[in-house]
Amino acid sequence: MSYSNQHLKHLSEFYRKQLLENTVPFWFPRSIDREHGGYLFMRDADGSLIDDDKAVWIQGRGAWLLATLYNTVEAKQEWLDGAKSGIDFLNKHGFDTDGRMFFHLTREGKPIRKRRYYFSETFAIIANAAYAKASGDQQAAEKARDLFGKCIAYSTQPHLLPAKFTSTRPAKGIGVPMIMINTAQQLRETIGDERCDEWIMRWIEEIKNDFVKHDIKCVMEQVAPDGSIINHIDGRTLNPGHAIEGAWFILHEAKYRNNDPELISLGCKMLDYMWERGWDKTHGGIFYFKDVYGKPVQEYWHDMKFWWPHNETIIATLLAYTLTGNEKYAQWHKMVHDYSYEKFYDKENGEWFGYLHKDGSLAQTAKGNLFKGPFHLPRQEWYCAELLKSLGY
Amino acid sequence: MSYSNQHLKHLSEFYRKQLLENTVPFWFPRSIDREHGGYLFMRDADGSLIDDDKAVWIQGRGAWLLATLYNTVEAKQEWLDGAKSGIDFLNKHGFDTDGRMFFHLTREGKPIRKRRYYFSETFAIIANAAYAKASGDQQAAEKARDLFGKCIAYSTQPHLLPAKFTSTRPAKGIGVPMIMINTAQQLRETIGDERCDEWIMRWIEEIKNDFVKHDIKCVMEQVAPDGSIINHIDGRTLNPGHAIEGAWFILHEAKYRNNDPELISLGCKMLDYMWERGWDKTHGGIFYFKDVYGKPVQEYWHDMKFWWPHNETIIATLLAYTLTGNEKYAQWHKMVHDYSYEKFYDKENGEWFGYLHKDGSLAQTAKGNLFKGPFHLPRQEWYCAELLKSLGY
Repeated sequence: MSYSNQHLKHLSEFYRKQLLENTVPFWFPRSIDREHGGYLFMRDADGSLIDDDKAVWIQGRGAWLLATLYNTVEAKQEWLDGAKSGIDFLNKHGFDTDGRMFFHLTREGKPIRKRRYYFSETFAIIANAAYAKASGDQQAAEKARDLFGKCIAYSTQPHLLPAKFTSTRPAKGIGVPMIMINTAQQLRETIGDERCDEWIMRWIEEIKNDFVKHDIKCVMEQVAPDGSIINHIDGRTLNPGHAIEGAWFILHEAKYRNNDPELISLGCKMLDYMWERGWDKTHGGIFYFKDVYGKPVQEYWHDMKFWWPHNETIIATLLAYTLTGNEKYAQWHKMVHDYSYEKFYDKENGEWFGYLHKDGSLAQTAKGNLFKGPFHLPRQEWYCAELLKSLGY
Repeated sequence: MSYSNQHLKHLSEFYRKQLLENTVPFWFPRSIDREHGGYLFMRDADGSLIDDDKAVWIQGRGAWLLATLYNTVEAKQEWLDGAKSGIDFLNKHGFDTDGRMFFHLTREGKPIRKRRYYFSETFAIIANAAYAKASGDQQAAEKARDLFGKCIAYSTQPHLLPAKFTSTRPAKGIGVPMIMINTAQQLRETIGDERCDEWIMRWIEEIKNDFVKHDIKCVMEQVAPDGSIINHIDGRTLNPGHAIEGAWFILHEAKYRNNDPELISLGCKMLDYMWERGWDKTHGGIFYFKDVYGKPVQEYWHDMKFWWPHNETIIATLLAYTLTGNEKYAQWHKMVHDYSYEKFYDKENGEWFGYLHKDGSLAQTAKGNLFKGPFHLPRQEWYCAELLKSLGY
C-alpha cells in the first residue's frame, strides 16, 4: 500500500484542521491563568479543572506550543501573549536557588517537588528559544542558551545531580540523549546555537553505539555505561513508543542533513525493531513496556495504551514514509493513525483521552494531569502538517 | 446469608491446606539462596527465576513467614533454618552505615537503592521478633527492639529522614500509623515489648481522628497534618485495599482487647466505607485507587485488581464476621474469597498471580518481583486459619 498524493494532501489538511479547530481550542484560551500567570492544564474530559497545580514540564511545553504556532502557523497576538504568560511564570517561580528547576508547583508558584531529572530544564529551553524567536526577547534567548549549557553539563557530569541508585550497578537511559537531541534541534531551528550540530551528532552516536542492538533487533531503554544489556528487570524493560520517538528525532536530523542515508537507515531500523516489539497484533495500539526477553515487567501498566506513544509513532511512520517511499511505512502509519483517531480522540469534547486498557477501552477520562497536557498531540498534528506542507502537500 | 459452623470449619481447613500444601511449597525450599544467604523470590508463574536481585522488604517478610510458621503451626527445623538464612543476610547486607536499611540489593548483598521510607525496617522488626521467639536468639530480640525504637523516632520526627516534597503543602499518609500498629502487634505477640500497647492506641487514635471521615463515609490515604482533606489529585486519591488492611489491624486489636466495642465499631466502619468505594460492582474485585470525589486519579493502574487488597479484604471480612456475627460480612467474605480463588489463584502452578486487568483477565504472570513475594497471601491463609482455629473451627 502506498499513499496517493491526494491522500497526503488530505492528511496535511486533516492534521492542520484538527490542530487548529480541535486540539488547540480545547486548551486555549481557557487554560491561561489570568490571575497568577502560567497555565491551568489539569483538566477532565469536558475541560473542567481537576486540580490547579502546575507541572513545570507542561508549563514549558505549553509555552513552546504557543510560541511555535506563532512562529510557524500564524502570528496571532493571543498566541504570543499566551506564550509570554508561561515564560514569565517559569522565570518567576520555576527555579530553585541552585539554578535547578522545580517539577511541581502550586497555582501561585510555590514549589511542591523538585526531582533529580532535568526534563523541566529541557522544556524550558525549547519554550524560551521559541518565544525568543517569536518576540525577539534577548533575555529569553540567553535563558535558553544558558540552560542548554547547564543540561550539557548535567548530561556529561552525572555527579552534578543527586543519584537515585548506588554505584553498584551503573546504568544510563536513552532518555537523556533523546531529549537532548530534540532540545538542540529546537534551539537550532528557532534562534540557532553553534553548539547544536556537533552535540546532536554525539548524542546520535551514543544511541547508535550503546542502545541500538542489531543482533536482537531492539532499542534498549537503559544499558550499562559501556552499552551492554543489564539482565535484571529494569535493564530488560523496553519502552517501544519512547524508542520510536527517538527514531523520528534521528529521521528529522536525516532530513535536516539533506536526507543523510546513514541517519535514515538508523532511524528506520529503530522504528522497524520497536514497531515489531511494540505493536499489539491482537488489539492494535502500542504497548507501553515490553521485556527484551519476553519476561514479566515490573511496571503495572505495561500493556496499557497511552496517548503519547501513538503520537510519536504517527510522526515516525509518516516521516519514514516520506523519506524512503517504503510502502510498509504508509501501511503502519495508516494502522496507528486509524487506531488513534478511533480510540483516543474524544469526538464529543475534542482532544484525546490519555489512557486506554490493553483492549482499547477507556481507563480514565483526564485530558491533563501531572504528565499529560498540550504537547504530544498538538506537536504531532503540527509536525505532520508542517512536514507535508514542506513537501508540497 | 450467614456461615454455618460447618462452613467455618471447611474454611479453616481450606486456608490451612492452601497455605501448607500450595502456597508455602511454591516458595520453599527452592527460594533459599544456599550460596549467598537470603532468598531468591523474583519468580515467574512456573517458579523460574526472573531476577536474582533481593528486595529488602520481602527478605524480611519471608523470614517473618518462616519463623511464624515455626512458632504457630509446627516446629519444623527447615522453617527455622530458612528464617535464619534471611535474618543473617539482612544483618550482613541490609544496613547502611547510618543505621537505615536499604531497599534493593544484588544477590550478593550489594546495595542498589535506598529509599526515604522505613518499611524495610518495619519488616525487619517483625522478622527479628518472630525469629527471636522461634530460636531464643537474644541478639535478634534486641535488633527488633532497637529498630522499633528507631521507627518510633522516624514516625514522630519526620525531619530525621530526607523529604520527598517541600514544606509548601505538608501531608501525612495512613501507611505510617498502619504499619506501626501491625509491627507493634507482631512484636507484642512474639517477644513482647512494654511500649507496644500504648503506641498502638496512639496510632489508632491518629487514624480515627485524622483519616476516618464519617461525614463522607471514607478513609483517606493521606491528609494534611491536622487531618483536613487536601483537595488536589494526590490528596484525593484513596487506596481502598490499604484502608481495609488498616481496618483489620484495628479489628485485631479489638479482639486482643477482649472484643473492645469501640474498636470493633471503628474497624467495621472503615471496612464498610471502603468496601462500598472499592468493590467493583460490575466485574468483582477491589479497585486499586479511587478519587474521593470521583475525579480521575493520576496513577495509571487505578482500576486494576492487585492480589494483596484481596488478601487483606478476605481477612478483614472474616474477622468482622467473627467479631460481630453480621451476615453482611459473611456475604462480603464469600464474594471476595470466591473472586480471588477463581481469578488470582494459579491452579496449574500454585500461589496467586499478582496483577489482573479491571475485567479480571491476567495482566502479567510474575509471582514474585520487587514488590510481590511470600507475604500477603500466606499471611492471609495463615491468619484466617489461626483465627478460625482460635474460635474452635
